[in-house]
Amino acid sequence: MIAPPAIVLSHTQMGENIGSAARAMKNFGLTNLVLVAPRCGWPNDRAEMLASGASDIIARALVFETTEAALAPYNLVLATTARGRDVVKQIHTPQAGAARLRETAAAGGRTAILFGNERAGLTNEEMSLADGVITIPTADFWSLNLAQAVLVTAYEWLKSADSTPAVQTRATAAVPATRHELTGLFEHLERELDAAEFLFPPAKRETMVRNIRAMILRSRLSDQEVRTIRGMIVALVRNKYRGRKAEENDR
Amino acid sequence: MIAPPAIVLSHTQMGENIGSAARAMKNFGLTNLVLVAPRCGWPNDRAEMLASGASDIIARALVFETTEAALAPYNLVLATTARGRDVVKQIHTPQAGAARLRETAAAGGRTAILFGNERAGLTNEEMSLADGVITIPTADFWSLNLAQAVLVTAYEWLKSADSTPAVQTRATAAVPATRHELTGLFEHLERELDAAEFLFPPAKRETMVRNIRAMILRSRLSDQEVRTIRGMIVALVRNKYRGRKAEENDR
Repeated sequence: MIAPPAIVLSHTQMGENIGSAARAMKNFGLTNLVLVAPRCGWPNDRAEMLASGASDIIARALVFETTEAALAPYNLVLATTARGRDVVKQIHTPQAGAARLRETAAAGGRTAILFGNERAGLTNEEMSLADGVITIPTADFWSLNLAQAVLVTAYEWLKSADSTPAVQTRATAAVPATRHELTGLFEHLERELDAAEFLFPPAKRETMVRNIRAMILRSRLSDQEVRTIRGMIVALVRNKYRGRKAEENDR
Repeated sequence: MIAPPAIVLSHTQMGENIGSAARAMKNFGLTNLVLVAPRCGWPNDRAEMLASGASDIIARALVFETTEAALAPYNLVLATTARGRDVVKQIHTPQAGAARLRETAAAGGRTAILFGNERAGLTNEEMSLADGVITIPTADFWSLNLAQAVLVTAYEWLKSADSTPAVQTRATAAVPATRHELTGLFEHLERELDAAEFLFPPAKRETMVRNIRAMILRSRLSDQEVRTIRGMIVALVRNKYRGRKAEENDR
């Protein structure tokens, strides 16, 4: 199994943010939390409270005095910064960063993502220890808070190996009706529409039929749904005749 | 400009979650918040507090009694559900969902993403109003809380139009050195390494030179960096001769 990146939080001010970051990690399968000189003090009650369900990550968090010591074991370190910071390093989108981390991790390397202090971000010295940068795209003049930034990078990590198809439909409805079943529906419907003089005038009949068939095909009906619709047609037609009969009786 | 999707929160229990959701929206350029019968009451102090900087979104939030009324104006509605819910609808990854929303929005349609109650999620009736589903991939047995789910879908919305290159280097360092500058560096370095008898034995010289050149090319040096390295070589060589001289003097 490929080892997920460690999340390294430098000089974090608020325990709440460490707790929320741990919760964000847990959602996406990240487990290694590393703290550099947390300003909020450690252990921290607020961190444990906000972690809600990710307390194992909080309990196993490693604490170091310096960023250099915290980063020592890692083969690849990507630092997160807000958009626009002037760095002479490769700047990755979260997705490209996740791909790079996964490539190194798959080759057996240990990887980490480094997050700075809530207000000041990362120092230039901390930046100099990173192989590259991840910047999360945001709306103009906005940047994510610490736990949100951890969430997005953790999400992209999981996504980088996620094989869920972009769009899927549950198996129960996944088998579309056969052409035979659809042709039966088309002919049934068109017969009743002819009888109801809906497909009128004759010169436009062909176009109307083609459009109705396209509309039906677009909804990718299952065999069960074809049967349901044919039942609906039968019921509607029956009611109409009943209606007429009732009207006739009324006279 | 393409109108971003509305975020529709149904029967939300905690004002904090509405506030955090508004903050998440703001980060990624979403502005329309719609609330269906918020259980926490509305207006809500906790929501305003947690929105921090996104209070305009809170102030302009629309409130409806029913989900049906809230969704009435939209041409495309995608509902968010946790993984594995058995629905006979197309299930999109957040990325594919964002692409579909953008396609409809680009054609002038109004779009919305629907989020259920914190505990119970969306009812079957609410689900029946949606065109499709977005499911956020997570680690096994985990699901995001409401504000986290809003954050990920909002992030994918912005990302679906974001043109930031996957990997970029700042302009200051973006122009690599010319081949002429690199050749100058190679020859300078190899001359000094020959003099120092580092490229030894002669049978291996060619391979060693090739590997060193590859290593240098891989770091994509700028012209300034080439000059810096040549300066370093000069300085190191001078120090070495000094060292020898000093040793000689010592004798």
